[in-house]
Parts: sequence; structure tokens; C-alpha cells
Amino acid sequence: MKEIIVIKIGGSEGIDLNAICLDLVNISKSGQPFILIHGGSHMTNQVATALGHPPQFVTSPSGYTSRLTDRTAIEIFEMVYCGLINKDVVERLQRLGLNAIGLSGIDGRLWQGKRKKAIKIVEEGRQRILRDNLTGRVEKVNTSLLLNLLDNGFLPVLCPPAISFEGEAMNVDGDRAAAATAVALGAKQLVILSNIPGVLADFPDESSLIRQVDFDDLPEISQRYAKGRMRIKLLGAQEAIAGGVRRVVLGDARSEEPVSAALAGVGTIIENKMMAAENLT
Amino acid sequence: MKEIIVIKIGGSEGIDLNAICLDLVNISKSGQPFILIHGGSHMTNQVATALGHPPQFVTSPSGYTSRLTDRTAIEIFEMVYCGLINKDVVERLQRLGLNAIGLSGIDGRLWQGKRKKAIKIVEEGRQRILRDNLTGRVEKVNTSLLLNLLDNGFLPVLCPPAISFEGEAMNVDGDRAAAATAVALGAKQLVILSNIPGVLADFPDESSLIRQVDFDDLPEISQRYAKGRMRIKLLGAQEAIAGGVRRVVLGDARSEEPVSAALAGVGTIIENKMMAAENLT
Repeated sequence: MKEIIVIKIGGSEGIDLNAICLDLVNISKSGQPFILIHGGSHMTNQVATALGHPPQFVTSPSGYTSRLTDRTAIEIFEMVYCGLINKDVVERLQRLGLNAIGLSGIDGRLWQGKRKKAIKIVEEGRQRILRDNLTGRVEKVNTSLLLNLLDNGFLPVLCPPAISFEGEAMNVDGDRAAAATAVALGAKQLVILSNIPGVLADFPDESSLIRQVDFDDLPEISQRYAKGRMRIKLLGAQEAIAGGVRRVVLGDARSEEPVSAALAGVGTIIENKMMAAENLT
Repeated sequence: MKEIIVIKIGGSEGIDLNAICLDLVNISKSGQPFILIHGGSHMTNQVATALGHPPQFVTSPSGYTSRLTDRTAIEIFEMVYCGLINKDVVERLQRLGLNAIGLSGIDGRLWQGKRKKAIKIVEEGRQRILRDNLTGRVEKVNTSLLLNLLDNGFLPVLCPPAISFEGEAMNVDGDRAAAATAVALGAKQLVILSNIPGVLADFPDESSLIRQVDFDDLPEISQRYAKGRMRIKLLGAQEAIAGGVRRVVLGDARSEEPVSAALAGVGTIIENKMMAAENLT
């Protein structure tokens, strides 16, 4: 099998699912195997608010923002991610002739990890401990399930939540889950598409796009330039490359052929220069 | 592989998912392969109402009631069936050690069929034609996907919607989809659990349970005794047995070990006596 590409599409406003799906049809024509992972945060916020359980976010002492996930929140999360969006994407791809199959990280224990029993958060400048938050991080990917599906001609379309080792549904960051999936599958490329063109030196000025970042410079770049969600994307990129992924592209989901453009190098390319040089020889 | 059993659990009020999942663990210990199909109508009605899009039902000239399914309705339907309930069931089973994997009929074109471009309905005693209703019937089951999953130790947990041959999500009746699945897999038994004990001669008097129905008597029994949803269950039973399923049990989802009880014959058993006799020899 050709090298697998892992493609993550964000769940923010302004992302054109139709353009992405049409682009994926073209990419699949070359016989390129890939796995699609999607987000759904914007729609989840909307549905949660409509259902009278508006989203809450917490910030960690190191500045990462994440969704507060109690049991009701994870149920609404599942409705939107696994129900509304996952099936919408699968339906669109099926209509275009791609044999998509949608799974969450719970299904077949696709994404397993330890649930964080307690997390530190910062609230009004003070730290406190939060328990009962159903969140964690993907530590183990059921690669045999994914490879089996790919071998049989299916296109896996994945989304959070994941599952704890004890069998509880838990929220995980989609970008980091995509990174873990790319690492576990030995993928050489990870494409992360969102509603901005990549890392911006002068956010939100899109002309300030940083086109290339070396792995060794990631912490500094993240510290200096990354705001909000971009910090977690860069953490995902770091984890992916540390785990052997050759190239991570943070691309713009809003362009006409967003995946092809990112694969052609449009966006912020993150590589380990030393490893990239080795791979050339 | 042992003969597969198809188990359908309803989505009405009063169904104890926990008892069902515990029971399934016991059944799986014998090595019995099975496929689980679930409903979700009650919860869908609640969520649809909460989201300001209350459910609407239509009745066909022959007296079958079904959900009116426009695009918004199918999106809410997917949120509840594929998101909330499917992942809840998969999570419960995973926590109990069963390697469940949840799929809708859209995924991998698991349940395909022709969409009804127009349906006849009866409204205030008058017939009219309804278009733009996203409904249909399962005509083709992706059995190779299901067998692949079973072979690899997964327990498939399925739910509507299905997908039209043109690739549109469409609502299908869960009991009839279960029947089509049982037929396609060559299953010998189909168990349909709901919140009543089976066909009642004097609805809702539960002591009036009809314990045995011969295939040939189904139309008459349905005509005389079946109310509302039970008529569609009997139609599913008829289709299953006509397609080669040996035994359909309509059982009570509210009992302590609901699946085991139904497999032991508690409920309304529907068989083709002539075929049953042949199978004994």
C-alpha cells in the first residue's frame, strides 16, 4: 500500500465541506490512501446553546483552552460530532462515489487513552483543580481496524470522542488525535485544515503567513505567534513529527481545493530539517 | 461460524439499555455471533421538540404510521440515532468488554435502497401525495462489511438512516431494516424487543399475549390485533420469514434478561410451521 496520509478538517465556521469532499475525490483517483478526521466545535456550541446547555471552556496554566466536558456536554458532543457532522461527511462522500465509513474513537476502541481524573485550570487568575471532566488524550490507536478498512476499499472518517481504558467516552483534542493516528499508522504526512491559512506572524493578518517551520523551532514559534486553537495544532504537529511523521501542513480549509493545496505545500509546513535531509538520501 | 442472530431493540420509553447490554455479555460468552440494531424514536421526538422542530407523523392508506422526514428532521434523527444512542450503546458494551462498533446504514452503504420519491398519505380522511420525504426501504445489505467485522471479533451496532442508491441519507423503518439484515446474512433468528411483551390480543392487556403465530396467519393476526408500531413489526417479521429466517420473536425489552428471555421463547414467536417441521428432519 502507498503511504497513508492523515487529513484533519476543523469544525470552525467558514469551512466548505463540499469543496473538501470534491477535492478528496480527485486525490483518491490517484490511489492515494487516506484517513479523514473531522472536528465540529462550532456546530456543537450552537446545538449545546439551543438545548440549554451552553458550552464552557477552561484554560490550563500553560495557556491551552479546552471544552469543559461533563456527561451532558459529551452527549451533545456525540450528537453533533458522531451524528450530525460525521454522517453528513460520509453521506457527501458516498454521493461522490467514495466508500466512506464513519467511526468515533469509541467504536472498536479506535482511540484509547487515560482519562484525566483531575485537571488544573486557571480561573480569574487563580488555579484550581477540576474533576469529573471527561477528557483525555489518545495513547493507543486501533490501527488494525483502520488498515482492515483501508484494505477493503473503505475511507475511514473519524471523530472524537475517544474512549478511556476503563471504557468511558472522553473528549480528546481532534488535532492531537489526528497526530496520534498519523504516528500509529506510520503516515508520512499529516494535513490539518482550519479556517485560517496557517501560523500567522501577525494574527489575523493573513499575509503574515509563516510558510516554513523547523521542528526545533516549534516551541519558540508557538510561544511567539500562536493564539488560541493554533497552539494546540502546533502541539499536535510537534507530537506527530516527534513520532516519525515527516511533514505536517497547516492549511486553509476555505480555499478551492483545500487538501490538494496543502499537499502542494500551501500553508505552514512543519518538518524536521535533519530528518527531511536524511529522507532525501 | 455459528448461525448469526439479529437483535433489534426499540427506541421507545421504558427500555432498560443496561439490562440489555448485560444480557448481551452473557450471550456472547457462548461464542454466539450477533448483530445489534437499535431504534431511538422517543429520544428523537424529545430532541426535535427541544430544537424547535417537533416530530410529525404521517399515516399511509394501508394504516402504517411513519415519521415525516425532511432534511432538518433527518439531521436531528442522525444526531440522536447515530450520535447520542449509538455511541451510548457502544460505550456501554465496550465498558462491559464487548468490542462494539457502531455504524449507520449510510456508512459503507451498509443499508441501501430506493428512496420513495412520493408517498401517499391520509390526512383528515383524505389521501394526498407527499414529496421531498427522505424515506425508503432497505433493499441491499453490505453483508461483506458485517461479516468482516464479525470475523474480526467486533460486534456491529447498527441504526438508521440508510442510504439511497443515489447516495442520499434516508429514513427507513428499523424493524424492517433488521429483517432485511437477517435475511441478507442468512440469520436463522431475529429478535425484536420493544416495550410490550409481544402481540396482544386485547391491547394493552399484557396477559392477552399471543404466544405463537404461524407465518400463514400473520396477515390476519396483524389485521385483527396489531396496533400502531406493532403492525410494522409484524410486517418486518413477515419479510424476515419470507426471506428464510426460521424464527422471529417479538419480546419484551423491559424484562431482566430481555434477549435471553426472547431467545428462550418468551414473547410472540412467529414461525413458518411447514419450514420449522422441515428443519427438524
